[in-house]
Amino acid sequence: MSNTSSGIPTFQDIEDAVTRISPHANKTPVLTSRTLNDMAGGEIFFKCENFQRAGAFKFRGACNSVFSLSDDEAAKGVATHSSGNHGQALALAARMRGIPAYVVMPENSPKVKLSAVEGYGAKVIRCESNQKAREETLQKVVNDTGASFIHPYDNKTVIAGQGTCACELLMEYPGLDIIMAPVGGGGLLSGTSITARELMPKMLVIGSEPEQADDASQSLKTGKLQKFDTTNTIADGLRTTLSERTFAIIQQNVDDILTVSDDSIIRAMRTVWERMNIIIEASCSVPVAAILEKKIDITGKKVGVILTGGNVDLEHLPWQE
Amino acid sequence: MSNTSSGIPTFQDIEDAVTRISPHANKTPVLTSRTLNDMAGGEIFFKCENFQRAGAFKFRGACNSVFSLSDDEAAKGVATHSSGNHGQALALAARMRGIPAYVVMPENSPKVKLSAVEGYGAKVIRCESNQKAREETLQKVVNDTGASFIHPYDNKTVIAGQGTCACELLMEYPGLDIIMAPVGGGGLLSGTSITARELMPKMLVIGSEPEQADDASQSLKTGKLQKFDTTNTIADGLRTTLSERTFAIIQQNVDDILTVSDDSIIRAMRTVWERMNIIIEASCSVPVAAILEKKIDITGKKVGVILTGGNVDLEHLPWQE
Repeated sequence: MSNTSSGIPTFQDIEDAVTRISPHANKTPVLTSRTLNDMAGGEIFFKCENFQRAGAFKFRGACNSVFSLSDDEAAKGVATHSSGNHGQALALAARMRGIPAYVVMPENSPKVKLSAVEGYGAKVIRCESNQKAREETLQKVVNDTGASFIHPYDNKTVIAGQGTCACELLMEYPGLDIIMAPVGGGGLLSGTSITARELMPKMLVIGSEPEQADDASQSLKTGKLQKFDTTNTIADGLRTTLSERTFAIIQQNVDDILTVSDDSIIRAMRTVWERMNIIIEASCSVPVAAILEKKIDITGKKVGVILTGGNVDLEHLPWQE
Repeated sequence: MSNTSSGIPTFQDIEDAVTRISPHANKTPVLTSRTLNDMAGGEIFFKCENFQRAGAFKFRGACNSVFSLSDDEAAKGVATHSSGNHGQALALAARMRGIPAYVVMPENSPKVKLSAVEGYGAKVIRCESNQKAREETLQKVVNDTGASFIHPYDNKTVIAGQGTCACELLMEYPGLDIIMAPVGGGGLLSGTSITARELMPKMLVIGSEPEQADDASQSLKTGKLQKFDTTNTIADGLRTTLSERTFAIIQQNVDDILTVSDDSIIRAMRTVWERMNIIIEASCSVPVAAILEKKIDITGKKVGVILTGGNVDLEHLPWQE
């Protein structure tokens, strides 16, 4: 499928995105916790994208993409396939610009996610729950409406938007030694790494992913893009795999990708809920798990951790299952 | 039982408390939510004491009391009866000063609360679950150890400590029209009202309590201190009744006390969890419920709401029961 926004973003693209999204996105707070610091042996600065609009960092990329369109393009709307936070984020950004959003979702998507996307005013198009149906349905929507396809991560303006989060964090805390983010499709980690390399070339840039979806780690190790289907991890936002583009960026900028078990993800999630009294989703807990499981030694270091999102089904918590 | 700290605090006492607790307590952040503002029709500034040390505003009063003691007094330790946040707060404050803490708790207290108090290093003394046993057991502890009794709210230094919260909020947001806090024993509302009357004499000071524990509302209406046992509301931190001292302060300074149903408390709690991605306990949700149920019209107003605490049993959420 053609992608309206190709190429790799520069830091200038990220700075432009900061200006573009600032009237619409939240400048999220940075929280610290003495208890978590004591557990980790270092100083952690949590960038709270769970307080971002629509509940996740995804709004940054979606917003940058929607407001990058020309008036003519925008009038035809935007479209994507997503059963997660990107769908909600795109729906909200489109509503803010006053244009249509079309979100293709598998027919087995949880009702709560469907309602959320519709609640932001998007038109939901159901399809069978497989990759082929998803792509065909999206293609049909794009053909019928002329909407611009905004891929969840394999898109230059999306990646530039995600890079604004590290930008805010590093402007506020320029003394960080390490920055950490989860990696699924790699949009956030790509944007983060471009920002970090520009603003603080010597800082460590570390990704984290579930053991059950360790394609990024395997890709980095082998030097070759690995793609495999993973649908079992509790960190449902990280089941996607890197694209050629995000892999190229990550290969160039990222120092390491750590992997953690699902059990440790759930433990880390609960620890943050209990000790910090904030709600984070499982996918968001992955870098915290890597720290608490000592997959990385942060003794005496200052570490920025991007808390990616807090969209959780409050009827069913993972430690209750 | 004798109380080492009698009388009514002045605003100077609260300013002294600010200085005294600042090395130990968190200066908690103020969060806003466009969604909640839209629902309420006004602008709400949430003072997040759920991010306070030990998870609740109670640490302010406990800390001020512990660090107000002379070295000789302090050496003998502090004691209280509490099955809730004050016990944890006092235990932590005592540990910070390096002195013993004795917490009398009914034998049917939830294990999670017991562990929390013990986790902060306090000695827990179990007693039968009635007022007489509680007071007798506490008196024995005080007689045996010489510890200073720090009442959860009927104590001058505790009230002064609780007043520091509004102080931080009003220094940061001097343009508020209304300030709201829940009322149980009245320590927080008393301290808040003294601060508000000093810094912004014309602002509305509004308490909120559960319909099932509306002693403060009844006291204010009748002009006479009402005491009745209430043990049924979900807002377990607000089951206590005013003392003569807190009633006197509230009668002088507080404009109104609103009451809300348990159902609306649970709805408000869930709304804050879902929309703001922060964890607040039922007692903390009461002023939010009053706003969302339109018990007060805040159209076009700027309202400070003290979010009192976030200590929740994550195994059992009220909307799951």
